[in-house]
Amino acid sequence: MANGNPGSGLQLRSLIKSSGELELSLAKVDIPDPAPDEILVRVEGSPINPSDLGLLLGPADMSTVKATAGPVVTASVDKRFLPALAARIDQSMPVGNEGAGTVVAAGSDPAAQALLGKLVAGIGGAMYAQYRTLKAADALVLPAGATAADGASCFVNPLTALGMVETMRKEGHTALVHTAAASNLGQMLQKICLKDGVSLINIVRSAEQANILKGIGAKHVLDSTSPSFVADLTDALAETGATLAFDAIGGGKLTSQILGAMEAALNRTAAVYSRYGSATHKQVYIYGGLDTGPTELVRSYGMAWGIGGWLLTYFLMKTPPAEAQRLRQRVADELKTTFASHYTAEIGLADVLKPEIIAAYNKRATGEKYLINPNKGLA
Amino acid sequence: MANGNPGSGLQLRSLIKSSGELELSLAKVDIPDPAPDEILVRVEGSPINPSDLGLLLGPADMSTVKATAGPVVTASVDKRFLPALAARIDQSMPVGNEGAGTVVAAGSDPAAQALLGKLVAGIGGAMYAQYRTLKAADALVLPAGATAADGASCFVNPLTALGMVETMRKEGHTALVHTAAASNLGQMLQKICLKDGVSLINIVRSAEQANILKGIGAKHVLDSTSPSFVADLTDALAETGATLAFDAIGGGKLTSQILGAMEAALNRTAAVYSRYGSATHKQVYIYGGLDTGPTELVRSYGMAWGIGGWLLTYFLMKTPPAEAQRLRQRVADELKTTFASHYTAEIGLADVLKPEIIAAYNKRATGEKYLINPNKGLA
Repeated sequence: MANGNPGSGLQLRSLIKSSGELELSLAKVDIPDPAPDEILVRVEGSPINPSDLGLLLGPADMSTVKATAGPVVTASVDKRFLPALAARIDQSMPVGNEGAGTVVAAGSDPAAQALLGKLVAGIGGAMYAQYRTLKAADALVLPAGATAADGASCFVNPLTALGMVETMRKEGHTALVHTAAASNLGQMLQKICLKDGVSLINIVRSAEQANILKGIGAKHVLDSTSPSFVADLTDALAETGATLAFDAIGGGKLTSQILGAMEAALNRTAAVYSRYGSATHKQVYIYGGLDTGPTELVRSYGMAWGIGGWLLTYFLMKTPPAEAQRLRQRVADELKTTFASHYTAEIGLADVLKPEIIAAYNKRATGEKYLINPNKGLA
Repeated sequence: MANGNPGSGLQLRSLIKSSGELELSLAKVDIPDPAPDEILVRVEGSPINPSDLGLLLGPADMSTVKATAGPVVTASVDKRFLPALAARIDQSMPVGNEGAGTVVAAGSDPAAQALLGKLVAGIGGAMYAQYRTLKAADALVLPAGATAADGASCFVNPLTALGMVETMRKEGHTALVHTAAASNLGQMLQKICLKDGVSLINIVRSAEQANILKGIGAKHVLDSTSPSFVADLTDALAETGATLAFDAIGGGKLTSQILGAMEAALNRTAAVYSRYGSATHKQVYIYGGLDTGPTELVRSYGMAWGIGGWLLTYFLMKTPPAEAQRLRQRVADELKTTFASHYTAEIGLADVLKPEIIAAYNKRATGEKYLINPNKGLA
């Protein structure tokens, strides 16, 4: 084994069986030496994002969870979900989109060797593991003073928040609406918008969440449980001119309410009547599914509107490399300020399989986020 | 009065009062002589399209319709609709998007003079009138042998059907889905697709409607009331590769069913599992509102999807003039074949105000369409 390669390590696995059973386990996997252009990272921080839960737990009914012999936990999956999961059935899947850690071994290329001992962040799956091999070119070196916890979430949330503002500019809008806005991501988005002078309307569901945003300088914070919510939203839309929203919730009526309020705000200044409504395009992108129930659209917003899915991966596929690099560099530069993440708790790899901890991280409560340190208690 | 200008004529008007009353009437209006670049058309055919009904009747409750003194008819409008109608309240609006007729007077420009006596078609509103002034440059001269009835619908439906196929090409799709597909518009779309070699999946709601489409050579005709509809649709989508649909219905679950079936068809050939579903973009444009109820989206089609409004006017605004002219010319060339319209009945201007005739043309039954001849019984 070259350098600091331990030869093997634990990796978390999620398996959905054709019998309708989810099984989470820790597998001991061999670790090959890095190729010339690769590095081996000892992972010291990897967040549990909503997007990770989708792969980790799938559509399993977590009220049926039970620990079995060894570090293994199981839960039932309703068989009606199985067809949509066909491509992963009976395949043990590694999990964990992003993470950060120390480079303990490096290939022979100078660019790889230069990273030895450095703290780096990476993305690409299989981060819920003690060790992860990365291409040296894909690693983001964390700035001086940053910890693995600081850098663990430096791709998904920061690039998503930046991607929203970039999408706004590319599609010709000038202000934004964001729902579930007190999330880690939402706080980053608010900080970006303050820095870039972009008006942002934050929609939250409690006074506590509103206070989080006001505490970082948010001007427009609306509580969707308030009786005057739609009127307040229309006023804020008229003031800011926002015609683009990013919605983390998905289900229910909020998407349609936002489009309706945008239309009402635009019609306040309409010069002539058109039965097709305002000709200004109004757009909502659904990027999350905090409410997995149906979306109900009451189409009272003319003909110039759109709703669609929004995914960071697809956004980055359409983004020229130089522009993507500029976004990544901004994340590194502002890692301890704009893009600072806050975690509810740091847990070890074996903790991910404990029923009481699953119940905690699977709550998906706004502002709560768990950090896995796969080497906690092991390294 | 120059040439054949009668000096005045009847024009149909729709008025929604702030009191919540819809009033339809015939107004006698003065007809100025055409400017040098204008022509005066005696309108001899103008269809009642769904888009005309929106302006003509608005959201009035037509079960409350009553004829009053003179050629005037009224109905109630629920006051909750009034804010959305603010820009037209208490303004008497002329109606009628498109029509055709004979040029009876012309301005001094040679291009206008050249049209004297010709049968032309036009678009732009106020066609439910005995006479309509048009810019000579905007008139489409009907081909030899065509009647005013042949040319009355030569903008809205033909350009919408062509616009759907153009949108498909521009947005990178290769086949289409269409709902309420046995309509006049749907038949045109099927004829275009047969001519252009584009696969089209027609969705209808009865065997009778299916037969109309099969009669003109449709290959894929699915009945949404069939128990095997979703399975049949998925098969047809897998066969054609269609990832774009145009939906005339709007309300209910069909839009979501189409997206779900597209995703299922794409996943049949998926090589690797992605919890974000197929990366191929799936799109439904809602261009009509046969069902004005809510649209219910069951978001089971990954993240690469979009839904939006589609309007001919907005499509044409984005279309370069030379391309728009090419589309118009195709309509003129194929007026008696691809773009032939069929009418349930021809009615006069006063008939539009008769309660029993309103009930008939307001049914919006697929394949039924009324033609107004504003000079019927008058000229």
